[in-house]
Amino acid sequence: MTKSVITILMLFVLQSLIAQTKKLTGFYEKNIDRELSLESAFDKNLSNISIGETIRTLSAEPHHISSAADKKNAEYILSLFKEWGWDAKIETFYVLFPTPQTRLLEMTSPHSYKAILKEPALKEDATSGQTGQLPTYNAFSADGDVTSDLVFVNYGLPDDYEILDKMGVDVKGKIVIAKYGRSWRGIKPKVAQEHGAIGCIIYSDPADDGYFEGDVYPKGPFRNEFAVQRGSVIDMSAAYPGDPLTPGIGATKDAKRLERLQSPSLLKIPVLPISYHDATPLLEALDGQVAPVEWHGGLPIAYHIGAGNTKVHLKLAFNWDIVQCYDVIAKIQGSKYPDEWVMRGNHHDAWVNGAGDPVSGQAAMLEEAKSIGSLLKTGWKPDRTIVYCAWDGEEPGLLGSTEWVEEHVKELKEKAVVYINSDANGRGFLFVQGSHALEPFMDEIAKQVIDPQTKVTVFERKRDHEAITARGTEAREKLWKENELKMEALGSGSDYSSFIQHAGIPSINLGFSGEDLAGDYHSIYDSYTLYQKFKDPEFLYGVTLAETAGHAVLRMADADGLPFDFTHLYKTITSYTNELITLLKTSRESTELENQIINSGGYKIGEDPTKGYSVPLVRTEVPFLDFSPLQNALLQLKSSTDKLNNVYQNSIRTNHINDAFNQSLYRAEQQLLNEIGLPRRPWYKHTLYAPGYYTGYGVKTMPGIREAIEQRNWEEAQQQIGVDAKIIIRFSEYLNVLSSSEN
Amino acid sequence: MTKSVITILMLFVLQSLIAQTKKLTGFYEKNIDRELSLESAFDKNLSNISIGETIRTLSAEPHHISSAADKKNAEYILSLFKEWGWDAKIETFYVLFPTPQTRLLEMTSPHSYKAILKEPALKEDATSGQTGQLPTYNAFSADGDVTSDLVFVNYGLPDDYEILDKMGVDVKGKIVIAKYGRSWRGIKPKVAQEHGAIGCIIYSDPADDGYFEGDVYPKGPFRNEFAVQRGSVIDMSAAYPGDPLTPGIGATKDAKRLERLQSPSLLKIPVLPISYHDATPLLEALDGQVAPVEWHGGLPIAYHIGAGNTKVHLKLAFNWDIVQCYDVIAKIQGSKYPDEWVMRGNHHDAWVNGAGDPVSGQAAMLEEAKSIGSLLKTGWKPDRTIVYCAWDGEEPGLLGSTEWVEEHVKELKEKAVVYINSDANGRGFLFVQGSHALEPFMDEIAKQVIDPQTKVTVFERKRDHEAITARGTEAREKLWKENELKMEALGSGSDYSSFIQHAGIPSINLGFSGEDLAGDYHSIYDSYTLYQKFKDPEFLYGVTLAETAGHAVLRMADADGLPFDFTHLYKTITSYTNELITLLKTSRESTELENQIINSGGYKIGEDPTKGYSVPLVRTEVPFLDFSPLQNALLQLKSSTDKLNNVYQNSIRTNHINDAFNQSLYRAEQQLLNEIGLPRRPWYKHTLYAPGYYTGYGVKTMPGIREAIEQRNWEEAQQQIGVDAKIIIRFSEYLNVLSSSEN
Repeated sequence: MTKSVITILMLFVLQSLIAQTKKLTGFYEKNIDRELSLESAFDKNLSNISIGETIRTLSAEPHHISSAADKKNAEYILSLFKEWGWDAKIETFYVLFPTPQTRLLEMTSPHSYKAILKEPALKEDATSGQTGQLPTYNAFSADGDVTSDLVFVNYGLPDDYEILDKMGVDVKGKIVIAKYGRSWRGIKPKVAQEHGAIGCIIYSDPADDGYFEGDVYPKGPFRNEFAVQRGSVIDMSAAYPGDPLTPGIGATKDAKRLERLQSPSLLKIPVLPISYHDATPLLEALDGQVAPVEWHGGLPIAYHIGAGNTKVHLKLAFNWDIVQCYDVIAKIQGSKYPDEWVMRGNHHDAWVNGAGDPVSGQAAMLEEAKSIGSLLKTGWKPDRTIVYCAWDGEEPGLLGSTEWVEEHVKELKEKAVVYINSDANGRGFLFVQGSHALEPFMDEIAKQVIDPQTKVTVFERKRDHEAITARGTEAREKLWKENELKMEALGSGSDYSSFIQHAGIPSINLGFSGEDLAGDYHSIYDSYTLYQKFKDPEFLYGVTLAETAGHAVLRMADADGLPFDFTHLYKTITSYTNELITLLKTSRESTELENQIINSGGYKIGEDPTKGYSVPLVRTEVPFLDFSPLQNALLQLKSSTDKLNNVYQNSIRTNHINDAFNQSLYRAEQQLLNEIGLPRRPWYKHTLYAPGYYTGYGVKTMPGIREAIEQRNWEEAQQQIGVDAKIIIRFSEYLNVLSSSEN
Repeated sequence: MTKSVITILMLFVLQSLIAQTKKLTGFYEKNIDRELSLESAFDKNLSNISIGETIRTLSAEPHHISSAADKKNAEYILSLFKEWGWDAKIETFYVLFPTPQTRLLEMTSPHSYKAILKEPALKEDATSGQTGQLPTYNAFSADGDVTSDLVFVNYGLPDDYEILDKMGVDVKGKIVIAKYGRSWRGIKPKVAQEHGAIGCIIYSDPADDGYFEGDVYPKGPFRNEFAVQRGSVIDMSAAYPGDPLTPGIGATKDAKRLERLQSPSLLKIPVLPISYHDATPLLEALDGQVAPVEWHGGLPIAYHIGAGNTKVHLKLAFNWDIVQCYDVIAKIQGSKYPDEWVMRGNHHDAWVNGAGDPVSGQAAMLEEAKSIGSLLKTGWKPDRTIVYCAWDGEEPGLLGSTEWVEEHVKELKEKAVVYINSDANGRGFLFVQGSHALEPFMDEIAKQVIDPQTKVTVFERKRDHEAITARGTEAREKLWKENELKMEALGSGSDYSSFIQHAGIPSINLGFSGEDLAGDYHSIYDSYTLYQKFKDPEFLYGVTLAETAGHAVLRMADADGLPFDFTHLYKTITSYTNELITLLKTSRESTELENQIINSGGYKIGEDPTKGYSVPLVRTEVPFLDFSPLQNALLQLKSSTDKLNNVYQNSIRTNHINDAFNQSLYRAEQQLLNEIGLPRRPWYKHTLYAPGYYTGYGVKTMPGIREAIEQRNWEEAQQQIGVDAKIIIRFSEYLNVLSSSEN
């Protein structure tokens, strides 16, 4: 070999090495450096000090929807966007928002106690004594004036009522008291109402976010005896989120509204949240059967179910006002594809001061917007339009985002490439939930953003944390050897809901948490003081959130080929299908066994006869269902996602992706919608992801089939298998067309 | 077929059916009816009323060892035996038994609190205010006067200290406070002492047997704020039970004694048990790091580890008296084999009144003795000698039984066929632990004795209860389909210990429990009132215990062929061996993984850096051990147990079992002893069963190998595999000789 041949060879090797290191999903090789420099410039503009200042400013006063400070904050956010060069405006909706007129909870027997229903100011917390705080209440409780026996129902979930049934306890005509936790709060009064209760009290047990977890505020971050979790009890998961009076349409000033008492998302019974200071005398007074050991919380008493000796009087009345809801919407027009929108959002309304929820996320998002503004000044412009949204009215029921999505749904379905959401943020570990075609995209970002405490990537930090805290060698090893970021599915609980579940817009929800544990949620103590002391003292994770979400926004805005990888979606749907097959099988096996035990008297023999427990009823056998339509549809999907993946990779390699192809990519998720919606909840249209009917926030994947199996509705389960199979085939055919178009 | 042929055939079928129903392990067919009638007559003599009266009588006064009522009870029991026709006497030993002279616990900083160390009398409980109650203390604590910082150590077990290490907390020179539970109490001060602590406080946390479990006494049976668990902290598991001054020999008046301070079973640091009333101010005062969430108990505070701001002063001094220990030993001479002893025991001493512990078991045993006395009057005599023992001094450390066994060990090894133990008893489910060659024997009994509440067999009741309370279909199904009684292995905690673990006498421990949950253990509230109200209101389970133990005694006494089935022992040893192989494997896998995580910085990355946790140290790799000697020994054992089983079955069928064969059967278990004992604890000689070095009561099976693996002493583990293999081969050869002798 001559020297020159060697040199040429060496150059070739070198080039391949460079080419290898220069991979960025969605970008032509030639554009990678530019994108990485842009992100690097973006990062340099981010300041933890500035995030801290924004948190302080926006949480300076109580700023729930319709409050003066809420409006002030919206206008302040608007002015910031404008100052940073964004085209920003406030879109106003008119939504139902009840505030308390009367709140009374008193025990009248066996002795009297009047609940104080008030969180005291603390000298250690400057904002805790402010005026303008919303009283402690559950928004969208019904008005009511009820007096009855009190019954303790544990977390108030369907399984708890099964145990009460067994114990011979009926809540019909009673008032129930449930612990906060284990489900979205709105499930508790809903299930109570389904069982005939006439009122519901929800309290924060110290075993859940109080002294069991550590020192209480102000010494530590956990819930003190007076702190109350406010919150909405709108029936989001079984009906719809957003304004109760305008399902499916934007709550504009003149929108056609339902009669309030006709709204399917409103409860019929009164509900009130209380502190454990107020709960203690009530629970202490309960008598009758001792609650099952697993029901006992953290109060220094033996928990009882109640036996009719404890009477409480609950009286609630609300101002059922229609209030203004201020969504701040800010845009930077895309230079190449102005009609393709990369969207980012975080709500700005709080229950009280909300330094953590939502201001910590809002401040990070605003820091991104500021940095993007600075990039604009360097002459850069995004290829696609970037839309930043500061939502109002999230707390009462995702009002601002839902109304906005409903109002703009047609435009969104055409233009929205992705919606990236955040909410409360703090010190700890990355979490990402969302549309699974974006899993590799988020994986790549998580392997580039650096954790501020340990200086490794946020992916590594998350992985190592999960590995060392898991129990059992097998689980630890699996997590330790995980080399891809796993995205969870989206349920509900923040503003992504209407985007993904109603409109089929690919969505991501992300943030950091795990080292910011606290018990200030929805209380007056979610303050700047607490946040700065306990949740993210130097606001470094504000910067990390801004980097993570910001990179996602910038990449999506400038990508040559939109980074959707449907092979990941295929794998995810396959794993859900396998879960469903297993779910049916285990349900069949457990039903068979339980029926055997019941029929042969096993419960009568094995239970303590002095307890007088009723024997469970024999259940209908679990039939075999035909999963083959789904399995065959998945075969098709595999083939079409593999093909599309090849086409995509090839087009990226050859710098050859056209706008129509990209548009079809981001609109693909809409093919997963079933326009008639899920059974009994037409608003929820996504066939893969929905909040659980009886979990509220917690997701149910392939919900049509899964919940039918869980509810033992076999006919519907079989029918939903057919529905999902058809949707998958339609999706698969859509991808095939897409592959052909690019070939 | 002629009519007569048909008749003959029918008769034949009928006979086989009768023959089938007439199976009673250990009896020639011709003797079965006689035995069953005997047992039926035995049962008819048992009276729940009488058992209740005995409980009331024996628990009428505080009767700890050396008290006046203890002596009175011993004499009363003696008189009963005599009255019922037994040849009874009291054997007296002279044992060390410390009682408190000085008890002082006070907190001196950050503020002062003096512990009350006293359980108040309750008007609802007649005996709770009696004089003569032992103060609350831990017998065999060292004398001491120490003042130091207090450190909370959770349950005070080795794993807890690993976590403290990680947190950077050292207990050297400190006083520790530990929760009762999760191990025998003596482990807690021992481990504290090993870690350099100078004092130890143990308290009853309400999450363990207080209000977390239900209503507290007197409203319910659970531990109230003032109740204290007394108890021994002698180093039973690492040294030996029984009198600390006379290891291995009977503590007769003139026995050669160790110097007290030289005794290896005595602690060097002071230990005091307290109530949660006394623990609360101490735990509230602790500061420093918040304890891990899993450490939090049931008090309404955030538990802290302590940081040096909480000083306590603990001063304890004891009267180190040698006291008299009254074992009541009663015999009925066997008519055929007077030198074969079927033994039955239950202690009679209590910490205070002890209606549950031990009187409920003692009363059932006495009811058996009374019934056997009545049988004698009908002219029946047992083939073998029956020996009933009411032990003294069990509470301070199995003193009475251990000294008696040590004194009579030579005779016992010749004569003792079996030792059947009971202790506290109550409403609920049968539990049986013991020598596994007796598993089918106890299985047969459990399938004949009837549960008083449900009228099914106690086997069925136990099985159904376990099945319906298990979690997960697989576990439930396994338990539900279980058709044999499973016997657990014997650890320590009652008077069987010296029989099985020191002398190799086949032993069984049994009783009923599970519906008698309470928190009166070792307090003044373990009274007749509490027992009758909460544990076995009609004393029906006293009768059931008497039936179960009584049938075992009568069958053993009259069996033609002693019902030892060594094929069950073989299966049990095989399952232990497989457990050990798996234990080593999982230890290797977890060590490999942990070392990888440590070496690659996973702990540094995954932990919260603000906690300053230390990274675990890399551990030496787990080698492969050679289990083949054990596995080959088991091959031999399988062959010899199968052969012996055939011989036995054949001899029973042909009414052909001789006395020498029976003697060899009951002495076989002694072949499992290793005369030099377990490593570092020569008193414990059984190679299959021992209390765990760091569990105390909890058993470790094949302890030589298992604890060496657990302690990562690989060389010793390999050596102990050899030891156990040799023992098994010796045992196997012994059985072969036995088979040949009978052939």
